[in-house]
Amino acid sequence: MTVTPQKKAVVLLSGGLDSATCAALARQEDYALYALTILYGQRHRIEIEAARRVAAAFDAVDQAVIEIDLRRFGGSALTADIAVPKGRADDVMSTEIPLTYVPARNTIFLSYALAWAEVLGTGDIFIGVNALDYSGYPDCRPEFIEAFERMANLATKTGVEGTAPIRIHTPLLHLTKAQIIRRGLEAGVDYGITHSCYDPTPEGLACGECDSCRLRLKGFAEAGIEDPAPYVPGRRDHS
Amino acid sequence: MTVTPQKKAVVLLSGGLDSATCAALARQEDYALYALTILYGQRHRIEIEAARRVAAAFDAVDQAVIEIDLRRFGGSALTADIAVPKGRADDVMSTEIPLTYVPARNTIFLSYALAWAEVLGTGDIFIGVNALDYSGYPDCRPEFIEAFERMANLATKTGVEGTAPIRIHTPLLHLTKAQIIRRGLEAGVDYGITHSCYDPTPEGLACGECDSCRLRLKGFAEAGIEDPAPYVPGRRDHS
Repeated sequence: MTVTPQKKAVVLLSGGLDSATCAALARQEDYALYALTILYGQRHRIEIEAARRVAAAFDAVDQAVIEIDLRRFGGSALTADIAVPKGRADDVMSTEIPLTYVPARNTIFLSYALAWAEVLGTGDIFIGVNALDYSGYPDCRPEFIEAFERMANLATKTGVEGTAPIRIHTPLLHLTKAQIIRRGLEAGVDYGITHSCYDPTPEGLACGECDSCRLRLKGFAEAGIEDPAPYVPGRRDHS
Repeated sequence: MTVTPQKKAVVLLSGGLDSATCAALARQEDYALYALTILYGQRHRIEIEAARRVAAAFDAVDQAVIEIDLRRFGGSALTADIAVPKGRADDVMSTEIPLTYVPARNTIFLSYALAWAEVLGTGDIFIGVNALDYSGYPDCRPEFIEAFERMANLATKTGVEGTAPIRIHTPLLHLTKAQIIRRGLEAGVDYGITHSCYDPTPEGLACGECDSCRLRLKGFAEAGIEDPAPYVPGRRDHS
């Protein structure tokens, strides 16, 4: 009996709902996971504990936790000293680039993933971006992902030598939040160990009011399921 | 009399010969310089002192020194515990991707530059890559730069809103090392304050034998000028 060497994938894993689902789907496709968790001077370091729990739940072969300092550049409520917006109107939330936008965030994240993938000798990178129920960030759009993939194949040894073409996998790209949650539950995600809030309490309770919480709660409501993550009392049903 | 607000440019500045020349040419085009110096766990931290000297010489408005940890991924003589190759044959040097290749290096560097440019409200980024007298790195080729620029315009607010299109300026791309040196001297570069060696002595003397030193010394020889930078005794004329 021969054993096929397992395919390796670098999976960007923040510990949030989307990246946990993305990791589960990569695992379902039988990839060995190399979880890449990037700290970027954000306030919600509680996410990192969530990322470690999710990596363990899906048998990640390795997890790299990388700290990058985007605070030096400023310009975002997630990295600079600007208040996280709460209770934005749904129509504004779907069309306007919000203050929580971090300049070039996914470009930087994918660039690190690319570096690790090349060292591992694989071209497979998973990222849980989503172009439907999202916060209006330009670097979550399909045309950005396609352009990054094209660039990545020109940036690397594997692009020049053709040994392991870079593929940016985005299994959540065209799903609604409710579809992501259902897909994740089928793939064995325990959403109780994930964390999405931009502005949690020091104890790690989700605020229920930031864009990220509201998109998440709306998704669970549409899926007809109660979110098992811990919220500030009375905020789980806020919408 | 009205004063035109000065154009801002983010300039990747390592403190080496190419990036110093690139900074000088950006300054000649009347850009206000925002120097971005990235430490990546490399051995030659002496470069950073050179980068500070060069930034000061060209009146940089600001200099961000960012530390990134590519050692976590390994895979390069510049970041991992692998010896820097010395005395490679010229034909090998021009065709083979060397051990000093750092995976996705320029992709990561340009991604940080993109983040800063977006916060500054400019689209102008300068990088001193060179496709002629170079070390065979895939991320120094014109097709990589073009693909990065295209991706960057899709990744950012300015790409969506069209306010400040991203332009990756590569004034050295098609120059020989000798042409770069002549152009730099015209633009006022003091090459005595720059540093290019991959493997300097603890005192900061260049080895004269690594790819970077050899390309540099060959360039000075072809330009008919003596390199004013400090070398290990007897190595300045090594070729």
